[in-house]
Amino acid sequence: MPRPSKLDPQEIDARLQNLPGWTTQNGSLHRHFQFDTFVEAFGFMARVALLAEKMDHHPDWSNVYNRVMINLNTHDAGGITELDFELAGRINALLS
Amino acid sequence: MPRPSKLDPQEIDARLQNLPGWTTQNGSLHRHFQFDTFVEAFGFMARVALLAEKMDHHPDWSNVYNRVMINLNTHDAGGITELDFELAGRINALLS
Amino acid sequence: MPRPSKLDPQEIDARLQNLPGWTTQNGSLHRHFQFDTFVEAFGFMARVALLAEKMDHHPDWSNVYNRVMINLNTHDAGGITELDFELAGRINALLS
Amino acid sequence: MPRPSKLDPQEIDARLQNLPGWTTQNGSLHRHFQFDTFVEAFGFMARVALLAEKMDHHPDWSNVYNRVMINLNTHDAGGITELDFELAGRINALLS
Repeated sequence: MPRPSKLDPQEIDARLQNLPGWTTQNGSLHRHFQFDTFVEAFGFMARVALLAEKMDHHPDWSNVYNRVMINLNTHDAGGITELDFELAGRINALLS
Repeated sequence: MPRPSKLDPQEIDARLQNLPGWTTQNGSLHRHFQFDTFVEAFGFMARVALLAEKMDHHPDWSNVYNRVMINLNTHDAGGITELDFELAGRINALLS
Repeated sequence: MPRPSKLDPQEIDARLQNLPGWTTQNGSLHRHFQFDTFVEAFGFMARVALLAEKMDHHPDWSNVYNRVMINLNTHDAGGITELDFELAGRINALLS
Repeated sequence: MPRPSKLDPQEIDARLQNLPGWTTQNGSLHRHFQFDTFVEAFGFMARVALLAEKMDHHPDWSNVYNRVMINLNTHDAGGITELDFELAGRINALLS
């Protein structure tokens, strides 16, 4: 599919209203997740990895024990695009 | 830890009372799991893999799309042991 | 993409010439993999899961400790299709 | 097992001689890994996760597409311990 273009700040703020838990940080969509155990955290990461590879859109993410930090932006577009909101929405759906 | 010995049928039946969803099948503890998607099924498998490797006790398992079938027995003991009930209990705890 | 149709036996035999390690078994492409450890086997499964989800074409597979058995067919087509050869080829590429 | 104590800088330097690819960075053992694809990078992460959970000693790590950055230290000991060298050695063994 054609890679979408960078969203402007007003569009980003409007879309964030419908994306619980996510904020913007250093030009990326950002969310922090906390689980009970490493097993739960890595099980979540495995599911996110499958979603990301399917979209061919990958996170900048880190993990320490039971915590997972995810940053999403679209390198080619130089900012946050619809792809990032799409992946963030699918990640949130994993937890509902 | 010392590998436990094979449990007798009465002990197995008694313990199964406290292990929802599991039955015995061909000399193994058996449970079938169904998820909404492959992503959910594989995320579950990743968590089970971590539990199993930590216990150094691994399942005989299979997956087709959103379904996961797990069989547990203790090869060295020639049957079902406490190790199998321990792993089955931890697997159930993932889903609660 | 449109789901491909079932390949006839001659096409299957011809394509198997270029797919080391795979045979046909009960109407599926089949290959057995053996690793040194469960860790290696499951790391392989994680990579196969990512390939499969990206193609939206999933294996019928099983694992016991260091062994992984994969069967591929296309349920909708009632047999082996190009999709199965495509996934089998990508799986082989993981090991090269 | 009893958690080991912090190693002194001379011991760390001596042990690093036998641990190709690792350096110290901000009080942690550090190594950067680069793979061909996200699929390869995440397959590696799945194997590292299994090693870590088995040791009950988890990395501080991050991933962007085909790159994985791992930092290891022992929080309880306030520095780098034998546990970190043990895990680093097992991670290196995955790649050999």
